[in-house]
Amino acid sequence: MSARFPHSLSRDEVEDFLKREFPQIAIGRRFVLEDVGPMSARMRLLFNEASLRPGGTISGPSMFALADVTLYVAILAQIGPVALAVTTNLNINFLSRPPAGDLICDCKLLKLGKRLAVGEVFLHAPGVEEPVAHATGTYSIPPG
Amino acid sequence: MSARFPHSLSRDEVEDFLKREFPQIAIGRRFVLEDVGPMSARMRLLFNEASLRPGGTISGPSMFALADVTLYVAILAQIGPVALAVTTNLNINFLSRPPAGDLICDCKLLKLGKRLAVGEVFLHAPGVEEPVAHATGTYSIPPG
Amino acid sequence: MSARFPHSLSRDEVEDFLKREFPQIAIGRRFVLEDVGPMSARMRLLFNEASLRPGGTISGPSMFALADVTLYVAILAQIGPVALAVTTNLNINFLSRPPAGDLICDCKLLKLGKRLAVGEVFLHAPGVEEPVAHATGTYSIPPG
Amino acid sequence: MSARFPHSLSRDEVEDFLKREFPQIAIGRRFVLEDVGPMSARMRLLFNEASLRPGGTISGPSMFALADVTLYVAILAQIGPVALAVTTNLNINFLSRPPAGDLICDCKLLKLGKRLAVGEVFLHAPGVEEPVAHATGTYSIPPG
Repeated sequence: MSARFPHSLSRDEVEDFLKREFPQIAIGRRFVLEDVGPMSARMRLLFNEASLRPGGTISGPSMFALADVTLYVAILAQIGPVALAVTTNLNINFLSRPPAGDLICDCKLLKLGKRLAVGEVFLHAPGVEEPVAHATGTYSIPPG
Repeated sequence: MSARFPHSLSRDEVEDFLKREFPQIAIGRRFVLEDVGPMSARMRLLFNEASLRPGGTISGPSMFALADVTLYVAILAQIGPVALAVTTNLNINFLSRPPAGDLICDCKLLKLGKRLAVGEVFLHAPGVEEPVAHATGTYSIPPG
Repeated sequence: MSARFPHSLSRDEVEDFLKREFPQIAIGRRFVLEDVGPMSARMRLLFNEASLRPGGTISGPSMFALADVTLYVAILAQIGPVALAVTTNLNINFLSRPPAGDLICDCKLLKLGKRLAVGEVFLHAPGVEEPVAHATGTYSIPPG
Repeated sequence: MSARFPHSLSRDEVEDFLKREFPQIAIGRRFVLEDVGPMSARMRLLFNEASLRPGGTISGPSMFALADVTLYVAILAQIGPVALAVTTNLNINFLSRPPAGDLICDCKLLKLGKRLAVGEVFLHAPGVEEPVAHATGTYSIPPG
């Protein structure tokens, strides 16, 4: 961690922050924060009728939301509680039809600069390596 | 229209199709289909507390959903009722913080091929030309 | 123009700057700067055997280069001679096979912020409206 | 490999095919095919004055070309000599300034379907894990 990012939060610290600052993310009800690590995070989207689209598959917007929040969590865990980091770009490829069940999202940060953070995420069914979607995203980090 | 895409649907025909096949899109409650035209469509996201994130702004996943459904509607209006067209890629740039209010999405198709359709969308507040977000997306069209 | 971007350059000023600072772009030999305007620019890629790939079509990297330089020129014309603006993201959709001939690139800036500029470009044959490729790109602007 | 893609080519077979069908890629002079494997490929961009931009760094179009050709090679090695697969989308994030030297590109295919192949690539200096750029791309595979 650079001098500008001296903090690094634990899983519990990130979870507390999200519950306090972003109640609408519904941590523990819609999303579960499974783990954070160096430049990485893992979240789970809990299966829910509302996430479905016809054919019993998870909707695109639900997968987008999962990708976006996991990127945010990975950044947060590295730079500390900066509520105002915002997504500037997200590019998502839908690869195959997800099964009707929970979805895991693994994020790896590719760059953590002073102004921009870039990461990639893989969305996959629990225990299945083959991804159903892949995304890369950029967050803008406000001046410290 | 090519021989393969002899149909082109009116606004009302697209709306009926969406209500019948995609009740979860909540046409008339969450999204309003404002217009369809040649290679184009316009939809409106109705302002709703559930779409908000802190600071009173529309959430990224809500904007993604609006972009995605407007692309689908523009394709549907051109190729007729093909429920199974699926998003393969969507790239979205968030440009500025949207105000707390309805959001308009204007879609223009850039390509309508036999297998792939590509379009771009501009998201903006009603009556405001400057976009709050821009996206390009690709749909895969199943063999006819 | 905001106080931070008081300059706005003419076509000739941009051309002089590019010739001086970026001789490798080969303005006048490989690329022609056709026009700059408010938040916009138009460039031309001159047809050249080296840009071709089999089938007599312009190569993807040549189209990427054209998209990237036109974005840069549109930004430059607005913010003045800032050599160090750098591309952070470029997303390109190839829509149809370009003919063997010059290619025009029309750029419109979607956002010109203090730290990031975002624009879109359409690549098309001269006099033909239908695009052969479309791209969106982000440039990072160094602190002034 | 599915019944539709019974072939899988060795490094030498891919190299022979590229030399024969795509002399302009300049295999062995501009690009070196380092390795192919299951759903993967590695290529090297040889350092060359022509790839440079001011500041002694590799140009964006050169990195785009490296990403694009490595994706193509990874697909080719899996599906056999199909000259006509074409890029439909490429999204590239430039992460840090590459050093003036050779550049390695590691590609992993994320999906190999009947009509579309999607892969990701990491560009990095030889022996350095941290990427200077990352891209995802989609190729359209012609009907067999």
